[in-house]
Amino acid sequence: MRKLLVIGIGAGSPEYVTVQAIGALNRARVFFVFDKGEAKSDLVALRKEVCERFIEKQDYRFVSIDDPVRDPEPHGYKRGVETWHIERAEKLAARLAAEVADGECGAFLVWGDPSLYDSTLRLLDLVREKDRFAFDIEVIPGISSVQALAARHGLILNTIGGSVLVTTGRELAERGWPDAADSVVVMLDRGDGLRAACQDGVDIYWGALLGTTRERLVSGKLTDVIDEIERIRAEEKAASGWIMDIYLLRRNRPA
Amino acid sequence: MRKLLVIGIGAGSPEYVTVQAIGALNRARVFFVFDKGEAKSDLVALRKEVCERFIEKQDYRFVSIDDPVRDPEPHGYKRGVETWHIERAEKLAARLAAEVADGECGAFLVWGDPSLYDSTLRLLDLVREKDRFAFDIEVIPGISSVQALAARHGLILNTIGGSVLVTTGRELAERGWPDAADSVVVMLDRGDGLRAACQDGVDIYWGALLGTTRERLVSGKLTDVIDEIERIRAEEKAASGWIMDIYLLRRNRPA
Repeated sequence: MRKLLVIGIGAGSPEYVTVQAIGALNRARVFFVFDKGEAKSDLVALRKEVCERFIEKQDYRFVSIDDPVRDPEPHGYKRGVETWHIERAEKLAARLAAEVADGECGAFLVWGDPSLYDSTLRLLDLVREKDRFAFDIEVIPGISSVQALAARHGLILNTIGGSVLVTTGRELAERGWPDAADSVVVMLDRGDGLRAACQDGVDIYWGALLGTTRERLVSGKLTDVIDEIERIRAEEKAASGWIMDIYLLRRNRPA
Repeated sequence: MRKLLVIGIGAGSPEYVTVQAIGALNRARVFFVFDKGEAKSDLVALRKEVCERFIEKQDYRFVSIDDPVRDPEPHGYKRGVETWHIERAEKLAARLAAEVADGECGAFLVWGDPSLYDSTLRLLDLVREKDRFAFDIEVIPGISSVQALAARHGLILNTIGGSVLVTTGRELAERGWPDAADSVVVMLDRGDGLRAACQDGVDIYWGALLGTTRERLVSGKLTDVIDEIERIRAEEKAASGWIMDIYLLRRNRPA
């Protein structure tokens, strides 16, 4: 039986790796990496750094898989993502069969936690549906950027007894403030969510490149700090071609 | 300057402790524990186990603080919790001053992550407001029960591009299904949330005592498995006086 480990390695810092993840890293012999091109090659480098730091025997290898370019949303966002996943699953099924021997253990290293806005588990479900071969999947949770954000700002995400919505910039821009929660964590925002949410009575706790040496934190009234955040986003994106950021918005209700 | 570390030690298993948390455990000399009475003394024992496993020098100590019994909701839930926090803050301010010397490092060990439905940070904010002494607070994120639940079920919390609401059993029972999300994570449910959500077209992924040797997992259509979940909850509660559980509900929308 082949085994695949989906290992959450935490949001940015090797310090976020858990004891369980260290154990899992040491069981795997093959690490799969999706090649997203030059722009994100520093993310691949960071994964290798995690392996070098925590794996005792240096007899493992990295296998890079070309990532099919995402369909530029011909049928809307959801359909585009699904097509993309199926293409990835087909390539992956072939590579897994070739690279992981029976009885061996392969692994995917996931930034943050595999359960939030990460496609690895969805992709592996598609591979399993293809039924070319059977393998066990074991998931190791990791410190998500949600928790890294909260920790760095010393925040509790929820108000007393209140709910927290975790959403995307796209959803926030399209659907506006939810009724269900005064606390909203926004991930994967290209900038439209931030602008859509900008109104009086909203506080923001923002973080980018959390856990890394380039970490940036800003907090305050959203109307006061939105320009600063947009400036930092633009600077960091210009510097490296990409940015990963996340924020908590809190709506202050009249008493 | 005194320092207080608020250390997330993960949801139940010492394997969830991070490298960063291990470093923090080794910096602290005094660990504060709220005594919640006999029923939850096994939670205190688990904290001590974490310290014994990960701290190198055994020159630290545990300081137990009596926990004022929560006001039985005379002015509603929110008011009751606030009064309770202020009482805890007053006791805590006195104990911290007595127990942590200048230049020393005290710590609170928080199950899961300090940013979700945990009162430690709120309590420390109240202590700081009292202004009897200044101290630095540093927060170490931990694997929350949300992530442990997802990992153990091999789940992605969000549907593609969709939002996730993290809420309490009380909120779910009072406010019903949110418009904002088809995926709802429910914490702190005494059972009313589960019953309120029970309808056709809802799947549940439930876990109790996650990460511990007594871990229980159930998943399926909520209407099919609700009786089983309620039976397990009652059994575990009868056995030890308390239960910690969490679940994801997913509403299946017609295409």
